[in-house]
Amino acid sequence: MIIVMKPGAKKESIQNIIRIIEDNGLTAHLSDGKEVTIIGVVGDKTKLQNQNLEIAEDVDKVVPVTESYKLANKKFHPEPSIIKVGNASIGGDELIIMSGPCAVESEDQVMETAKAIQKAGAQILRGGAYKPRTSPYAFQGLEEDGLKLMKEAKDETGLAVVCEVTSLAAIEAAVKYVDMLQIGARNMQNFYLLKEAGKTGLPVLLKRGLSATIDEWLNASEYIIAEGNPNVVLCERGIRTFETATRNTLDISAVPVIKHKSHLPIIVDPSHATGVRKYVKPLAMSAIAAGADGLMIETHPNPACALSDGPQSLTFQQFEELCGEIRPLAKLMGKKF
Amino acid sequence: MIIVMKPGAKKESIQNIIRIIEDNGLTAHLSDGKEVTIIGVVGDKTKLQNQNLEIAEDVDKVVPVTESYKLANKKFHPEPSIIKVGNASIGGDELIIMSGPCAVESEDQVMETAKAIQKAGAQILRGGAYKPRTSPYAFQGLEEDGLKLMKEAKDETGLAVVCEVTSLAAIEAAVKYVDMLQIGARNMQNFYLLKEAGKTGLPVLLKRGLSATIDEWLNASEYIIAEGNPNVVLCERGIRTFETATRNTLDISAVPVIKHKSHLPIIVDPSHATGVRKYVKPLAMSAIAAGADGLMIETHPNPACALSDGPQSLTFQQFEELCGEIRPLAKLMGKKF
Amino acid sequence: MIIVMKPGAKKESIQNIIRIIEDNGLTAHLSDGKEVTIIGVVGDKTKLQNQNLEIAEDVDKVVPVTESYKLANKKFHPEPSIIKVGNASIGGDELIIMSGPCAVESEDQVMETAKAIQKAGAQILRGGAYKPRTSPYAFQGLEEDGLKLMKEAKDETGLAVVCEVTSLAAIEAAVKYVDMLQIGARNMQNFYLLKEAGKTGLPVLLKRGLSATIDEWLNASEYIIAEGNPNVVLCERGIRTFETATRNTLDISAVPVIKHKSHLPIIVDPSHATGVRKYVKPLAMSAIAAGADGLMIETHPNPACALSDGPQSLTFQQFEELCGEIRPLAKLMGKKF
Amino acid sequence: MIIVMKPGAKKESIQNIIRIIEDNGLTAHLSDGKEVTIIGVVGDKTKLQNQNLEIAEDVDKVVPVTESYKLANKKFHPEPSIIKVGNASIGGDELIIMSGPCAVESEDQVMETAKAIQKAGAQILRGGAYKPRTSPYAFQGLEEDGLKLMKEAKDETGLAVVCEVTSLAAIEAAVKYVDMLQIGARNMQNFYLLKEAGKTGLPVLLKRGLSATIDEWLNASEYIIAEGNPNVVLCERGIRTFETATRNTLDISAVPVIKHKSHLPIIVDPSHATGVRKYVKPLAMSAIAAGADGLMIETHPNPACALSDGPQSLTFQQFEELCGEIRPLAKLMGKKF
Repeated sequence: MIIVMKPGAKKESIQNIIRIIEDNGLTAHLSDGKEVTIIGVVGDKTKLQNQNLEIAEDVDKVVPVTESYKLANKKFHPEPSIIKVGNASIGGDELIIMSGPCAVESEDQVMETAKAIQKAGAQILRGGAYKPRTSPYAFQGLEEDGLKLMKEAKDETGLAVVCEVTSLAAIEAAVKYVDMLQIGARNMQNFYLLKEAGKTGLPVLLKRGLSATIDEWLNASEYIIAEGNPNVVLCERGIRTFETATRNTLDISAVPVIKHKSHLPIIVDPSHATGVRKYVKPLAMSAIAAGADGLMIETHPNPACALSDGPQSLTFQQFEELCGEIRPLAKLMGKKF
Repeated sequence: MIIVMKPGAKKESIQNIIRIIEDNGLTAHLSDGKEVTIIGVVGDKTKLQNQNLEIAEDVDKVVPVTESYKLANKKFHPEPSIIKVGNASIGGDELIIMSGPCAVESEDQVMETAKAIQKAGAQILRGGAYKPRTSPYAFQGLEEDGLKLMKEAKDETGLAVVCEVTSLAAIEAAVKYVDMLQIGARNMQNFYLLKEAGKTGLPVLLKRGLSATIDEWLNASEYIIAEGNPNVVLCERGIRTFETATRNTLDISAVPVIKHKSHLPIIVDPSHATGVRKYVKPLAMSAIAAGADGLMIETHPNPACALSDGPQSLTFQQFEELCGEIRPLAKLMGKKF
Repeated sequence: MIIVMKPGAKKESIQNIIRIIEDNGLTAHLSDGKEVTIIGVVGDKTKLQNQNLEIAEDVDKVVPVTESYKLANKKFHPEPSIIKVGNASIGGDELIIMSGPCAVESEDQVMETAKAIQKAGAQILRGGAYKPRTSPYAFQGLEEDGLKLMKEAKDETGLAVVCEVTSLAAIEAAVKYVDMLQIGARNMQNFYLLKEAGKTGLPVLLKRGLSATIDEWLNASEYIIAEGNPNVVLCERGIRTFETATRNTLDISAVPVIKHKSHLPIIVDPSHATGVRKYVKPLAMSAIAAGADGLMIETHPNPACALSDGPQSLTFQQFEELCGEIRPLAKLMGKKF
Repeated sequence: MIIVMKPGAKKESIQNIIRIIEDNGLTAHLSDGKEVTIIGVVGDKTKLQNQNLEIAEDVDKVVPVTESYKLANKKFHPEPSIIKVGNASIGGDELIIMSGPCAVESEDQVMETAKAIQKAGAQILRGGAYKPRTSPYAFQGLEEDGLKLMKEAKDETGLAVVCEVTSLAAIEAAVKYVDMLQIGARNMQNFYLLKEAGKTGLPVLLKRGLSATIDEWLNASEYIIAEGNPNVVLCERGIRTFETATRNTLDISAVPVIKHKSHLPIIVDPSHATGVRKYVKPLAMSAIAAGADGLMIETHPNPACALSDGPQSLTFQQFEELCGEIRPLAKLMGKKF
């Protein structure tokens, strides 16, 4: 942490800062410049977190130099993490594809989808039973009945299953049926939910918030890991910008940035990122080429009748074709699929 | 709702859309242009919400023309709502100021603050007992003990009190102690929490999400009102942009836009919007001049030692001076304070 | 400037950085922390600007601690600047209102507008003769003929006049007719144009770019001042965000931030910021309450027929009423109007 | 174009709109809904562009349904354009790589770079002679002397050359030396410059503005094409968002969106998009996988000493390795390289 003093800061103000630093058991390094004086802090900065040095006399600004997340930080855990979900391993040399409908609607729909995506090569079935919808008048999900249908599909096919949870009640239900919990973009900073998901020990798929910085996202993962659950997979699904041609803006840079800053695996969801079916394939390909560990792709037996997000869902045939195009690219990138 | 067809759309494609519209009991109006054909839909559009017309053959785009929120919509409720919180009324001719610390820390802190803000003119005491913090290593709040301290301050001073809730457990605790529940920015689309807050019947202060559009914000309020609880007050607290000189960017336009689109009261929080103490006063003044129904301002007996958000908190003296400057402005704007 | 080394940086890497710093005649201050080593640089940092220390071995990041703009910086020029434009003074105790049509269309339109805004209290007439329009098929302005009409209105009324310039040719024409040059938002980083405007010595109204940070804006003003022309007035006109209820998002915080960082005057343009007539008044009021030195407000004799930006233009009657409401607020804020 | 009336709009207001539409030689289609009335306009909407229907009595909003750009629009030009630049063809089955230093610094630097990138496989040499820099105190470019050095490198190697132009004077100089003009992000809406670049007839590389929507970008290209110059290549180089881990956010979706909306070729610049050397390779790969027609990559003989953008420049060896990895990917995507 560095404290930058205002030009012409009084000697007493500088001494005051140094005193606070030293009183908290840390060491202060003074750089007395022509224009400004800066004070470097050496030691455990969390001891200073309630000192509010920003508003001390003659302080211009406080500049943090280390990240606030530790357990998710590659600096302290240089080896990439590999997360097991059912029979699938995310973060290693396998390319993982999660697929299925935005919302679980019926037994037929789920079972048919599970078989179709498995045939095409996907390893994990996704399907929403608790749906966070912008409008209260939109379909809100089948809840526990939906979870049961996912479990049936898992039992029938052997695919691992992942479902979004939106409350403690949903977590308590989901642990009985699923292999992985999903925390959605809108709940990325629902810290209470993160802690509860952490406590289950189940793998957690943590989607990036619509306007979350990468640092905030890694801090959110830290909430889960700090509960003793290191099984976190990150999912980039588009951020909110001024552009309206796509529903969100896929931040493809997040893939290499996460690989640089963290040991956690990262997958990409081109369906939610664009909201438009015809853009799903090029973005899926770009994600693999950027080094993503996997993809989440929405599929539906009949997108035109999907109760949620139909316009971005692929038909089974489109999904199979996409998997066919992914195969040689995955190989080129050194991934098994 | 309007369906815009692609240039050169086939006759059958157009007939197909018309058939879907009519099969759902609605009326289609065809405008056959030189470049494009558009189809207007007349009737209750919610009947079409699962038809995914966007991906039907030859459809270019679907343009909604009415808002998805109804209960919060001024078109169907032209009179402004006035929400009672303790003895205060928000949305009428009173200017309401909520003030207090970001986080409840101790009995002395809360009691001292309650008395100071009351003396300066504030009508509602705010204080956080459940703190959503970016890092899991930051102070997370006193929880129910904090709520009790707020209740004590209320009993002592007669001020109404508002506390943030972050989970069903927090709501269940809070209803025993507070006059108003706050849903924070990070939980604005925690729809589960919105519904539970709605069920309590208590007034709810709904902060705008960091990257929420005004339409999404009003849809979030709709979740609360749809539970039979019309007592919603909106709070603009800054949105996320590329600018870094302030913590967030106060969207001052939200005040007149909300006044135009909704009957709900709106207050402004310049403390969170800027994150910088010296900008609180000018933005508080600007909010009142823009027509806001009130303000939320952070105060602390000793900001330099605040466990949360000290750098943006005012001292009691600064708060009293601010209230002194607000008084003639409120009068000029036709508000009692 | 501070150089943050990676954890475990090699001794030689650290020595290398120190050597580069010292070879350039500067002093290095080393803070050797448990987690990271940081190196503070003391002296004239511009000497290091081509050293690209970011990519030197073992460097994690380089953190600037001083602003790159000097002449616009309040730290080196604490007194507020007052800029004379015709008989008006911007930045002192006068509140200045610039008004007129988005585009100059005809002699009648300009003359009628000049008289109407003067009667209402405005001190400066604005009108565009060179119009930057998103589409090449929209009206592009009367060019020099438009400038002549502005000059006629100035001669008739005594009002000062300001016109936007978009090229060197436009500047060469404008200096013959106007009192102040405007650089529009889209040209804020047209550095060539900034320098040419600077060379004229005329006062320059510099609008903020749609996605410019405040630091970039002040750096743009530095281009003008560095040509020996200190007569710069800043104009906040809204930035681009995800919100679509208004055309742009007025960054009202820019007013106190500029007052804190710079000595230059700042005015606010609520017409372009919102693009919606009914929001102009509340935002005009909020700007004055936030401490702005003035306003730019679009007016038109007949907004329904305006060739540019009609939907956000006020009629003369609306403008006169607005000025009537501004008067007591200006007085309250200690400004003459 | 669709006009949406307010709920309860008066009959006369509706008649008034229909009259305006018909008076302008267009046809109005009325859809009289339960909640709202909408009026579709059939015919050439440009005839209505100065009618400002938004502010007519009882109008709620005006919704455009067709794009304002025509010449760049795929709807009216379904075949992809192929642009010749020297011996290279952009937009066909060749993958084009433009490479070179951000700023031209010396004969040795340019010549050495030209040979190195040619050897690695690049077809076009880029180098800036007129540099738009945020601060007036940063290196501003060698201007015409720089153009001459680029021409020498072209004569020596046979590579085509592209240089940025920032003013009419720069265009007048550049046409003597270069094969392609570049319009930079900051000048994307410098409409005067776009027209002048259009008049030269030379191919133009049009970078996307930092906060430009894809529609605005295509409208900017329309300015060039409308001058009779169809030789436009688009370049996505990152947009501005709240994320700070990268200098800008590469909008990878722009590649398929442009392919869907326009016939113009699109290349991607991962160097400017990220500002960080280690992220250039993954983003270059992702761009090719998304379907881009080419790349622009910064290289420098000695990035540590580059006068501009050193931290994002590749060494020749890094560039050669990147080209080696690109080769099989290009082949997989059906592109020659």
